[in-house]
Amino acid sequence: MRDAYHDELDALTGQLVEMTRLVRSAISRATTAILDSDLQLAESVISQDEEVDRIFSEIEASIFGLMATQQPVAVDLRVVIAALRMGTDLERMGDLAEHVAKVARLRHPESAIPAEVRSTIVEMGQIAERLVTKAGSCIASRDVDAALELEDDDDAMDRLHRRLFKVLMAPDWKHGVEPAIDVTLIGRYYERYADHAVRVARDVVYLVTGTRTPDAADLV
Amino acid sequence: MRDAYHDELDALTGQLVEMTRLVRSAISRATTAILDSDLQLAESVISQDEEVDRIFSEIEASIFGLMATQQPVAVDLRVVIAALRMGTDLERMGDLAEHVAKVARLRHPESAIPAEVRSTIVEMGQIAERLVTKAGSCIASRDVDAALELEDDDDAMDRLHRRLFKVLMAPDWKHGVEPAIDVTLIGRYYERYADHAVRVARDVVYLVTGTRTPDAADLV
Repeated sequence: MRDAYHDELDALTGQLVEMTRLVRSAISRATTAILDSDLQLAESVISQDEEVDRIFSEIEASIFGLMATQQPVAVDLRVVIAALRMGTDLERMGDLAEHVAKVARLRHPESAIPAEVRSTIVEMGQIAERLVTKAGSCIASRDVDAALELEDDDDAMDRLHRRLFKVLMAPDWKHGVEPAIDVTLIGRYYERYADHAVRVARDVVYLVTGTRTPDAADLV
Repeated sequence: MRDAYHDELDALTGQLVEMTRLVRSAISRATTAILDSDLQLAESVISQDEEVDRIFSEIEASIFGLMATQQPVAVDLRVVIAALRMGTDLERMGDLAEHVAKVARLRHPESAIPAEVRSTIVEMGQIAERLVTKAGSCIASRDVDAALELEDDDDAMDRLHRRLFKVLMAPDWKHGVEPAIDVTLIGRYYERYADHAVRVARDVVYLVTGTRTPDAADLV
């Protein structure tokens, strides 16, 4: 019985890593969709978010089952608590990628991204992918040092987010209000995506060390 | 020992209700601060968010302690899982109220809210307060029917959110880009605040019935 129990605990890690893979692919395609006004790609992100939700439902069911029947303690308990939290964050990251794709779909065949902010959005997409890739590696390896590195990438995302507002509010912004609103929301989605990736990494630290990093205070 | 255990479970309810009280006060003051450019009120919201975070830390510590020492099962297990999730959502609602207050502070002594959107923001603030008040009652009463009612208030919030965009994108919007960005973000904060209140209510349903409402799919 204990073997099946530990197999199920290990399976949680695999499911969470699979979620990171899916939400990485989602933000990658969403970024291309918004930059290139690619409707088909946008639709693929929107329709495939269900798969992320499905895996998260499986994780939840597995966790509630484990808790009810096995009463995990110590590190095993941290594994299930952390998995529940990480799954919640990853599921949200899938939603945020979907939001970016929905803006692309809404504005198609026009582009939602004026030339002046294009390079910033490219970089935000790259950092988002890097963050979720690292988060996936951390979940698999339980490497605390690697998990702590995500904070730096998140700082880079915050800098890009501020740069975006500077461009939008500059006197020479000539695209008017609607593109500014789109870019504001898109920027917010990337920035929140990054925050959730950092939260995942912090839960890896908690899982390994039992110490919770206060997360909400500095992730806006 | 079982009595102290049940006392601690009951205490979770009280702590969560206290969190709803604090984040209700926060969004109420943040709304007034943003409408009246009241810097002192904005500062009070920003500085008092720590209190919300502190109670959530207490809840987390209590839950991890309970899980490690008591191995709750059945409804007790649902109480602790739901409390962890509800605490996470309420903590986030405090952050969102703080974000509104920070926009008020950033623009002070100017107002971030042009006259054309004032009444919509007033209503969004009212619905946010109503939602969190109801969420608090549901946590205390474990009333499933009352919990399900929050979905309607959230629909009203979504309608207001759409109305906001209509005003911002109307041809007669004369305030330019910066106020449009502020209002876009503020609208998003209220809408997310409402989403989190609905999630809290859904966790009351889960706690009582053991059935999870799929939440992420339709809360954007």
